[in-house]
Amino acid sequence: RIDDNRLWQSLMALAQIGATPKGGVCRIALTDEDKAGRDQVVQWFRDAGLQVRVDEVGNVFGRRPGTDPQARAVATGSHIDTQPTGGKFDGNYGVLAGLEVVRTLNSHGIQTVAPLEVAFWMNEEGTRFTPVMMGSGAFAGIFGADHIRSQQDGAGLTVGEELARIGYLGDVACGDVPGGAFAAYFEAHIEQGPVLEAYDKPIGIVSGALGQQWYDVTVTGMDAHAGPTPMNLRHDAMLAAARMVDAVNRIALDQAPHGRGTVGHLQVLPNSRNVIPGQVKFSVDFRNLSQTGLDAMDAAMRTEFARLAGQCQCQVEITQVVRFAPCIFHPGCVASVRGAADSLGYAHMEVVSGAGHDAVYVHSVAPTAMIFVPCKDGISHNEIEDAKSEHLAAGCNVLLHAMLAHAGV
Amino acid sequence: RIDDNRLWQSLMALAQIGATPKGGVCRIALTDEDKAGRDQVVQWFRDAGLQVRVDEVGNVFGRRPGTDPQARAVATGSHIDTQPTGGKFDGNYGVLAGLEVVRTLNSHGIQTVAPLEVAFWMNEEGTRFTPVMMGSGAFAGIFGADHIRSQQDGAGLTVGEELARIGYLGDVACGDVPGGAFAAYFEAHIEQGPVLEAYDKPIGIVSGALGQQWYDVTVTGMDAHAGPTPMNLRHDAMLAAARMVDAVNRIALDQAPHGRGTVGHLQVLPNSRNVIPGQVKFSVDFRNLSQTGLDAMDAAMRTEFARLAGQCQCQVEITQVVRFAPCIFHPGCVASVRGAADSLGYAHMEVVSGAGHDAVYVHSVAPTAMIFVPCKDGISHNEIEDAKSEHLAAGCNVLLHAMLAHAGV
Ligand SMILES: NC(=O)NCCC(=O)O
Ligand SMILES: NC(=O)NCCC(=O)O
Repeated sequence: RIDDNRLWQSLMALAQIGATPKGGVCRIALTDEDKAGRDQVVQWFRDAGLQVRVDEVGNVFGRRPGTDPQARAVATGSHIDTQPTGGKFDGNYGVLAGLEVVRTLNSHGIQTVAPLEVAFWMNEEGTRFTPVMMGSGAFAGIFGADHIRSQQDGAGLTVGEELARIGYLGDVACGDVPGGAFAAYFEAHIEQGPVLEAYDKPIGIVSGALGQQWYDVTVTGMDAHAGPTPMNLRHDAMLAAARMVDAVNRIALDQAPHGRGTVGHLQVLPNSRNVIPGQVKFSVDFRNLSQTGLDAMDAAMRTEFARLAGQCQCQVEITQVVRFAPCIFHPGCVASVRGAADSLGYAHMEVVSGAGHDAVYVHSVAPTAMIFVPCKDGISHNEIEDAKSEHLAAGCNVLLHAMLAHAGV
Repeated sequence: RIDDNRLWQSLMALAQIGATPKGGVCRIALTDEDKAGRDQVVQWFRDAGLQVRVDEVGNVFGRRPGTDPQARAVATGSHIDTQPTGGKFDGNYGVLAGLEVVRTLNSHGIQTVAPLEVAFWMNEEGTRFTPVMMGSGAFAGIFGADHIRSQQDGAGLTVGEELARIGYLGDVACGDVPGGAFAAYFEAHIEQGPVLEAYDKPIGIVSGALGQQWYDVTVTGMDAHAGPTPMNLRHDAMLAAARMVDAVNRIALDQAPHGRGTVGHLQVLPNSRNVIPGQVKFSVDFRNLSQTGLDAMDAAMRTEFARLAGQCQCQVEITQVVRFAPCIFHPGCVASVRGAADSLGYAHMEVVSGAGHDAVYVHSVAPTAMIFVPCKDGISHNEIEDAKSEHLAAGCNVLLHAMLAHAGV
């Protein structure tokens, strides 16, 4: 069993770097704070005897050799970059749980047959450089390393320049692992949702992750004065958009239990009290566990939006901007997580990740599964993000046993 | 008959002051541009022999004496301040139509029994200083002069300071008219709506103006991650607000033909693509011809919004921010407008003003009516606002004859 207190103390120590007044953390990717966080974790890696490797997009790997020099590594990890008003646990937990697994094995003098690795992936949050999950995506070969290094932030600085500046532009080729691809990858993460808490389970066995399709929608009507324009002569883009928001919700409910539909961003023009809006722009975020389901949501949206635009004498334009395919994690790895939770006596349930994670990309190059633990009120991407030490410890114990099952003692 | 070309030339000359690159006008109340516009109109008033009076809130009156020194004045007017991206006709037309009436009488050597007055009211648009229709409201005693002079713009400058700076802080007490209150007040204005154009009528006989009730609405739910949060555990403020927008439309349609319901302003928090919005703020603008109708809309909104908030596990807060009572213009003045249009042979129809106008305030202290002329596509508060010279001339002829009917020749 891991050391609950040591894990908690590491989390609290890392949260000091970039700490915000409201108790959160701001360590945006490739800033000075991210450098300080990286330096701290690398120091801990070295103190625990790990061999540190940095790849050409700034992913960092700490390796604990196994007894069989031929064996492929069993890996874990997550990210330590945060949202601008992020919390202490999102990402950080997965990395420090990996470190705690190593420290536990060290203090018990346990050798594994296969090497173990703990990784932290560059820029998971995508808050400064798009897209999200950049480092793990490059590792999995989804993006080229050159493409990633040329991505710019709002000030025109590139990922490559910023990696060099903070000392994390490594020379390991993206995806290269000594001895060959990971034999297995496990990622522990806070759930970022309310399900485990609602069902009072400390462990979520994550069987897969929802696919995502994001859209930009523009509804165009005609600005007009709210007073003299009769209801039947309006081209009210706000009314059309409102009905589309309702349709997004209906379309997601039609795909229960895994369909999700969210309009998070909406902008009105000219946005004046007594002017009927001539244009409304908004985002649609659709998620589902199957591509068939996502396709059905896409089709339903296009039909409904055209109908509703017509109803309000408006035009609608839909552009797809993001796409992640649905992901079913490796059945063997998922079984190992379940086996570990069972043998440790933790109550658990199968869940699906609604959010994207580095594990979703790693899954395409190695057998992968995830372990979720509850977070308070399901809140994340928020300075008040919180989690219980006992749940974090439970997830870390499950991670330890799942990794050992694959690495062999 | 008035001189069509002279009226058009005056409109085009005044539109040079504060002209915008896109063919509109920007002469926001009490700015340097407004001063230049005021100086030009006052010069024209003086050239036409009018005696100029400025009151203590910057309303300006030009008087043409009558033959009976005892008689109360027959007045007309409107405003010359504009929206930031305003047009050439909104307000300006009513003032320059009044000037054209005087010039026409001058060039024909016609004396009236009662004096005539042409007014331009301070800050009708309310774009820099709230509320709208400030000058006419103070003239009618709805607002105190001190209160109005203490109103501040976004930079903290007061109406009083700005009036003094541009030389239009007069000494006439608000509401004072030599010889007593106006015997009648007529205001010519572009319709700012699409009805006259749709029915192909050059003249609208305005029988009244819709009452207005404006609200600020805040819907509060709970921010949450769009991925991991199941549809049934959401407190989606965007969804609740969208259904409320639809309800505003329904409530207005239930009050056909005079009910209007508009959500012109809407703001989402935190307004991020993959975050379920925790708060949405929006405006509601309800209009109707009867107070009973407005009361019914208010009650229906409160019931519906509470129901829809509950449906989406959100809270709703409603604050009323503006109220104008419905206005039925003076039957005698309305009859004079109709009589003038008939005798001049202009096609006309009875309409109701959907927008607020200075005439609505003046109506509370003098018998009042309005004359509408069509504007292109019903568009105003827009640089592309446009109107036909022949329609503007027709409205001005109707104004001339309606005023003469009350003033006596
Ligand atoms: N874990 C996480 O917050 N990912 C961001 C992308 C998403 O919206 O799923
Ligand atoms: N005429 C005009 O645009 N008035 C502004 C107030 C309103 O919205 O009716």
